[in-house]
Amino acid sequence: MTDSVFDEPPDLPPQAPPPPVDFAEFKKVVESRRSVRLFTPEGVPEEQVRAALDLALLAPNSSNLQPWEFHWVRTPEKKAALVEACLSQPAARTAAELIVCVARTDTWRANRARMLEILGGQTGTPPAVLDYYRRLVPFVYTVGPLGLVARLRGAAMWVVGLFRPAPREPASRAELTTWAVKSAALACENLMLAFRAQGWDTCPMEGMDSRRVRRLLGLPRGATVVMVVAAGRRSSKGVYGPRLRFDRALFVREH
Amino acid sequence: MTDSVFDEPPDLPPQAPPPPVDFAEFKKVVESRRSVRLFTPEGVPEEQVRAALDLALLAPNSSNLQPWEFHWVRTPEKKAALVEACLSQPAARTAAELIVCVARTDTWRANRARMLEILGGQTGTPPAVLDYYRRLVPFVYTVGPLGLVARLRGAAMWVVGLFRPAPREPASRAELTTWAVKSAALACENLMLAFRAQGWDTCPMEGMDSRRVRRLLGLPRGATVVMVVAAGRRSSKGVYGPRLRFDRALFVREH
Repeated sequence: MTDSVFDEPPDLPPQAPPPPVDFAEFKKVVESRRSVRLFTPEGVPEEQVRAALDLALLAPNSSNLQPWEFHWVRTPEKKAALVEACLSQPAARTAAELIVCVARTDTWRANRARMLEILGGQTGTPPAVLDYYRRLVPFVYTVGPLGLVARLRGAAMWVVGLFRPAPREPASRAELTTWAVKSAALACENLMLAFRAQGWDTCPMEGMDSRRVRRLLGLPRGATVVMVVAAGRRSSKGVYGPRLRFDRALFVREH
Repeated sequence: MTDSVFDEPPDLPPQAPPPPVDFAEFKKVVESRRSVRLFTPEGVPEEQVRAALDLALLAPNSSNLQPWEFHWVRTPEKKAALVEACLSQPAARTAAELIVCVARTDTWRANRARMLEILGGQTGTPPAVLDYYRRLVPFVYTVGPLGLVARLRGAAMWVVGLFRPAPREPASRAELTTWAVKSAALACENLMLAFRAQGWDTCPMEGMDSRRVRRLLGLPRGATVVMVVAAGRRSSKGVYGPRLRFDRALFVREH
């Protein structure tokens, strides 16, 4: 595993630097994003929802295996059922749009095959990268029946780890779920900021009946409901109070 | 549980609308963010790192319990050890700054107390909100020894769920970890975008030895390493290839 993408950078032609951006505008997006619990009846134009979803899909994600899905619930019947599954909270009831973010632990094999197909068809793909998808990805993400493969791998990595640094996760089915949820949450943040940047607001909802949401969307076993994102026009009474963040010293440590 | 914040919006004075923002600038931030695997030796000014961390802490998070931490590893000895724990990958080796994001399942009680102290000291806090932190938060997040409280609650919610929508998670210690990681990942995305918006770049690293990272930072049992974020000036050979995203129809479903 040491002669992998983790070792040497490939020899690449120089790339153009990234564009400069206006930090003040970005800061305004993040600072003005609040969890909005009451929306006006105004609808969000379809193309702006799609633009937000497109930016969600540009989030970084683990090994580019893209273990995420966004279920945009639009038909009145399904929307009503989803509102109910969200415990009929005002953010859900008044939202113009409801999008369910889902993490998938059962799509990495197919997406690995897609990566291999794309990378194999390109000239100049470093052999270490192909090798990463061919050998390392199945080694790392297979959990097996009852999670036994993951547990065995975890034990093996523990032994290896006595001698040198070794990756540990996922060492169980639950850790594979956490892995997928992590990438999906990165995308959720992009989604919410993208709505805000277009003038709309959102509320991420975790207080919901994930079993009913799964049934409504027909989700398979390898799917986990990450959150439901409500979106729409912020009501003038949509924010329930000033933003409360505790002392940053509690959360930022320097070593 | 039904007479809670999930029911009726409180009666609030009208608020000013959020500021308009320049969507094109935001889009540029998201589109130009790539996982950069090679940095130049240039350092990031301390105040820009702090600005990025401050924006990370403005991410939405579950019940405002802020189950996240950012460990900024600055001393040469600890940085060298962290690079090694990151399997000495080029992104870690060449990064000007390394920040470890950690999710905490053991801080919600203290942060609940902080919320109650702040909310209780404010006039006009809706009783339902106080009640939410007083009664519902401990009900939902207590997992108990061996996760037994969470499992019992999960079983009870299953029964309740036969009759009406009921929240399900966390029904195990693992699900509480996923819960904390989810909020922490939302903050990580803010962090990475905030670096990009200030002209810097990042690489989120999950391929690392989380046991060694835990030991290095002296993390307690209730802490989970979410990712290590490398940051610095993008090298002209820092991006290993064109961005690859599969067909959006694979990820965006309409219902």
